[in-house]
Amino acid sequence: MKQTHFGTRGGELALIDEIRERAGRGAGRGRLGGVRLGIGDDCALLAVRKGEELAVTTDLSIAGRHFRLDWHQPEAVGHRALARGLSDLAAMGARPVAAFLSLGVPRELTVADRGRRAWVQRFVDGLLALAEVNETPLAGGDLAESPVAVADIVLVGAVPRGRAMLRSGARPGDLLYVTGALGGAANGLARLAELASLAKAGPPRIPKKFEALLAPHLNPQPRVVQGLWLRRRGLASATIDLSDGLSTDLAHLCEESGVAAEVEEGLVPLRLGASLDEALHGGEDYELLFTAPSAARLPRAIAGVAVSRIGRMVKVRRGRPAVTLKTQRGAAALERLGWEHFS
Amino acid sequence: MKQTHFGTRGGELALIDEIRERAGRGAGRGRLGGVRLGIGDDCALLAVRKGEELAVTTDLSIAGRHFRLDWHQPEAVGHRALARGLSDLAAMGARPVAAFLSLGVPRELTVADRGRRAWVQRFVDGLLALAEVNETPLAGGDLAESPVAVADIVLVGAVPRGRAMLRSGARPGDLLYVTGALGGAANGLARLAELASLAKAGPPRIPKKFEALLAPHLNPQPRVVQGLWLRRRGLASATIDLSDGLSTDLAHLCEESGVAAEVEEGLVPLRLGASLDEALHGGEDYELLFTAPSAARLPRAIAGVAVSRIGRMVKVRRGRPAVTLKTQRGAAALERLGWEHFS
Repeated sequence: MKQTHFGTRGGELALIDEIRERAGRGAGRGRLGGVRLGIGDDCALLAVRKGEELAVTTDLSIAGRHFRLDWHQPEAVGHRALARGLSDLAAMGARPVAAFLSLGVPRELTVADRGRRAWVQRFVDGLLALAEVNETPLAGGDLAESPVAVADIVLVGAVPRGRAMLRSGARPGDLLYVTGALGGAANGLARLAELASLAKAGPPRIPKKFEALLAPHLNPQPRVVQGLWLRRRGLASATIDLSDGLSTDLAHLCEESGVAAEVEEGLVPLRLGASLDEALHGGEDYELLFTAPSAARLPRAIAGVAVSRIGRMVKVRRGRPAVTLKTQRGAAALERLGWEHFS
Repeated sequence: MKQTHFGTRGGELALIDEIRERAGRGAGRGRLGGVRLGIGDDCALLAVRKGEELAVTTDLSIAGRHFRLDWHQPEAVGHRALARGLSDLAAMGARPVAAFLSLGVPRELTVADRGRRAWVQRFVDGLLALAEVNETPLAGGDLAESPVAVADIVLVGAVPRGRAMLRSGARPGDLLYVTGALGGAANGLARLAELASLAKAGPPRIPKKFEALLAPHLNPQPRVVQGLWLRRRGLASATIDLSDGLSTDLAHLCEESGVAAEVEEGLVPLRLGASLDEALHGGEDYELLFTAPSAARLPRAIAGVAVSRIGRMVKVRRGRPAVTLKTQRGAAALERLGWEHFS
């Protein structure tokens, strides 16, 4: 968020100054932590502690692909964009150091709408609220006019050297775990689509009785604390976050680790209202999927979030699927039916 | 560039694997430098040396705003996107550690075109070629389908703690310098527009005789080496890169430093073919604009790139413009006529 990219001279938008001021006050209750220099220069400057290395991730959110202007309130779009990045840090067991936002928006989204704050301001509201909970300062970014709303979120985290949790460490015999419950995001999205189809214009208001059901989709909580806990205890052999769906993300973990997996259908924790299908393939739950040696003692919950064993890792064998779903009726390949781009 | 975002299963695109393989070979002639873990996990892992802090910058490039699919060859789009980020590092005097690319493209740009490599592949070609020259590994990113081509480039650099060159250090009495010559990018863009208007379809071929004139626009060379040189010598009191135009960027430097500036028209170095107007307001030259105490001895060139004194810094005075242009006819306010978003 270089100042150069905003029209402060006679422009109708003092957005950059507003963001700079709000970010300067600091997400994380006044602390800027590792941010030595935030918005306003050519680069932000970050400090890392001795013995740490950096974890960096970027995540694109594009109108029509990852969110819809006519379905999602801008605060939810901002929240979800940041949640994606924080979830990647969580999967590595990294502590957040700073976030960066590159935002491209059509001009009309920068203008206040009948007395309401502009879309971009409300987007930033949602983003900064989640940033604060996770003590992650917004340290910079870029802002440009764009025919389509697009937000790229960059998260920088820190992790003790050589201690990051990777996708590649699972071994045959390890047990497979997941935090929280699955399918809620996909189920919430389906319900949001219904509500939107009934709304006259713009994103629907969420009736009180639907709030809990839509929360996993609209306000997912990245498992930063749980990731840090797992990394500090050194219990997990491999970790990935569930962004694209269990079937797809588990396949990635298997690929990177060179192992296969068996999931027990009856052990998969379903979020209230969600179907098994939504839990297996829905994506965007932002829970952690991880493996641990069978001797490891995992708690039932980490910082209030349940931990469930859902299967185990096995050797890769020719002719056997990478991921098998075991049910009461037998076993079958768990096809990758989660989110895939360009497929 | 998490693997999860690419359709490797039966998709027509093995782009992610290709990028991963090419990035793994390493820009920077086989060295991955500070990149401990590149493309393929939830985050990339970077190492920073003891006593260093990190410089981070993000830059959006959007079709129709920063480039045009019908004007620019994809290699040039990739080159220019990375050049913007490297130029921000140069302005801080930071050494590049890693680049990240978040790329959103319409599906048709991922498909080979009559025997030619796909647009995205050629985009990456251009980006990686400049990355290699600057020994900057591509360590990760994201890839998504988008109705509009959009690339967000993230650069992570390192600089000794407390030694980064900032916009805010200029003092009255300091002299004002610029690297290279100005206006070439704006002039090249105007010539490219002419060529494009004559072309039947798609980006025009650049005739040999125009190559040198268009190079400042199509293949700008970020002044990474010059920035490092200035930072190591400790000569500059304030630095900014010329991305939005001298008139606008100098105003930013003045604002952040709390000083005013006088530019001498006759001292502004013009790139071959460029007008004074293009040099003052054109933008995208990616030269360094910096100040140094009058006692500092600056060389005529740094690593083959000329250094020119173009003016001096003065105190802010009420009723006097922040930036004054001194000409043979007298002095007048240098209006900010460079690139501004939402203005």
